[in-house]
Parts: sequence; structure tokens; C-alpha cells
Amino acid sequence: MKKENVSDAVIRRLPRYYRQLSELKARGQVRISSHSLGQEMNITASQIRQDLSCFGEFGQQGYGYNVEELHTEIGHILGVDNHHHLIMIGAGNLGHALMHNFHFQEAGFTLDAAFDVAPAVIGTQINNVPIFSMDELDGYVHSHSVDVVVLTVPQSVAQSLTERLVHLGIHGFWNFTNVEITCPNPDVRIESIHFADSLLTLSYRIANR
Amino acid sequence: MKKENVSDAVIRRLPRYYRQLSELKARGQVRISSHSLGQEMNITASQIRQDLSCFGEFGQQGYGYNVEELHTEIGHILGVDNHHHLIMIGAGNLGHALMHNFHFQEAGFTLDAAFDVAPAVIGTQINNVPIFSMDELDGYVHSHSVDVVVLTVPQSVAQSLTERLVHLGIHGFWNFTNVEITCPNPDVRIESIHFADSLLTLSYRIANR
Repeated sequence: MKKENVSDAVIRRLPRYYRQLSELKARGQVRISSHSLGQEMNITASQIRQDLSCFGEFGQQGYGYNVEELHTEIGHILGVDNHHHLIMIGAGNLGHALMHNFHFQEAGFTLDAAFDVAPAVIGTQINNVPIFSMDELDGYVHSHSVDVVVLTVPQSVAQSLTERLVHLGIHGFWNFTNVEITCPNPDVRIESIHFADSLLTLSYRIANR
Repeated sequence: MKKENVSDAVIRRLPRYYRQLSELKARGQVRISSHSLGQEMNITASQIRQDLSCFGEFGQQGYGYNVEELHTEIGHILGVDNHHHLIMIGAGNLGHALMHNFHFQEAGFTLDAAFDVAPAVIGTQINNVPIFSMDELDGYVHSHSVDVVVLTVPQSVAQSLTERLVHLGIHGFWNFTNVEITCPNPDVRIESIHFADSLLTLSYRIANR
């Protein structure tokens, strides 16, 4: 499988393909042409073929793609079968929302535990996820496999907490704090969801339509 | 101000510039070169100059950018001074989290009201936002100015609800439902935050480092 120098734009389209193929699968569709897939996603057929060519050969001339096969292949490329483990730091409103509503399993992740400083939640479970004290964090990380930490903490502690976790050996962060977190370690991967950036993009589009 | 055919990539970088300039302003920095700004953001200086040239002339050769001026200008381009009004549909966990923690005002938005079907929350206020019944939605939209609807509802109702709202005259949607919403009306702007896409992107980066 070819995978060198895949651009950020291509990587960000992969989950969209995966999501679209999940929907097609759910609708019972067996095969789809790159043209039809492109129409559903507002992408050109040649873009799709070019994106997928970064990862191997998919589809057949005149037949198109087998929906289930391509779904499985892209899932494999995305690592959904890698059984990643994550823990969450910050069991406040957003943490609650994610624990109750987000389907971690569908992305191949298991949320094993959450950590917080509030005595009211420590020792409880939220949607079967046990909430521990922050004092127990180091011990937990030393004795469990943790691939990703979900950061749903206040902005003010995001950077220092990340540094503490990198020091503990954590190399993956899913950052909801709306601040840019930096890390000099090239092995560390940080993926941020910036709500404000998204709303400002919408603001721009409304102002300029 | 030139604003035709600005690419999606440039539009998506504008909020990042705005955020970075806010931080520089908060740190008390008065001016910055495109080179230094680029280093802070992991973007090349020429990319920054090229992006900003889509909107006019900013900065001075040998001086760089005045932080406060550029912050104000980009805020203006993004429409943060347009005083947009939004309402939220779905006051569940994620709705709660946004009402409590997200600074709508900093993006130039006022969250005026939220709507839900649960009797337990209807008639209450969450962080000063009044929660109304879904039965009151049509009447509210007819008698108030609403620029954007925040969709924090279950996936299953997202598309039909959007169609109902477009019919009521709503042209802006901030979509948290993790489904792709479509609308044939070219004036309607839909901005989606796909949590799953973000986590799958992280999954890819972890699997391929």
C-alpha cells in the first residue's frame, strides 16, 4: 500500500468517504461509480480516483466500487480496526455530552476512563465510563494502554496538562479546548476541534453570500 | 475590498489568523512580521501574504503588521461586528455544554433562545438562555431575527428539521449532528462540525506515524 506524503487535504477527505460509504451500506447499496459517489459528496469523480490512488487500487473500470469492500478498506486505512484506547480529561458539560452521545466504538475507539477534579463526579460512572480523580491519572497511565487523551478541560490548563501527559508517554490528543496546543515531540499527534473557527467560517459565508 | 472567488482553504485559515492575533493582542504584542506570524502558526510567510491579499492591502514592507489593526480587519472580514443572532435546537448534553462554555459573543453572535421537546427543560433557563417548546418555534422565528440555527438534535431529525427551518426563512445552520445535511437553496449556508471525522483523522495519523 502506497502511503508516503499523503496531503492533509486527502487525509481529511478519507473520513468523509468512510461516512458516505457507511450511509450507502446502510441503504443497502452494493456498488457505486466514482461519478455517483462524487455527486453525493460534491467532489469530482477524478478527485476521488486520485485520492484513493494514494492508497492502492480500488474499483474496476466499468463496475465502479463495491460499497462494502471500499468501506472496509478505507476503515482499515483510517485504523478503525486498531482498537485504540482513550481516556478523557475533564468530565464537565462537554465531557458529559461526548460520553453520552458520541459513538467512540464506530471510530474504533474505546473510552476506558475519565478524570476530573470535581468531588461530585469522582467515583461515579457516566454512561458506564468510570470517573477518577486527577490524582489517579499518573498511576492509571502507567498501568494501562492509552493511545489518545480527549482534552475537555478549561483552556488555561490545556498546554501544561498536555506536557504532563506527553511526559507520561501519551502520544495522541483530541483537543476540544479551542486553544492551539504545541508539542516539540514529532511523534505526538494533536487533532483539535475548534468550535469558534467553525462558527467564524459560517459568519464569513453569511456575510459574503 | 477584493473578495471574489476566495478559496475554501483561505476562508478556513481566516479564523486561525483571527485567533492567533487575539492571542498576540492579549500578550501585548504591537506588531508582527509575516515571517514570525507564520512561524507561530506553522504556515509560510508567503502563504499569509497571499491569503491576506485576497481581501486588500495589509501590513507594510519592513514593519510587518500592526497586531490590533489586522485583528480588527480580519474580524471585520469574518463578520464579527455584524451582530448575528442565533437560536439552538436541542438542549441536551451538547446543547448544555455549548450554552455553558462556548463564548458566542466573541464570535459576534448572540444566542437568544433554545428549543427542545423535553418537558423537564421547557420553561427553564440555561446560563440565561430561555428554553422554549418546539411548538413555539414557528411563532418565534416569525417574530424575531434569526441568522443561524445551531443544530444539536438527534441525527434522525436533522434533515427534516433543516427543511422545516429553511421553509421558515432560516438561511444559516451550524450543524453538530454528524450527518451531512443538504439543501437545494443556494442562499443557505451550512457549516458542520463532524466529531467522528476529526477522531478518524487522528486515528489515521496515529496509525501512520
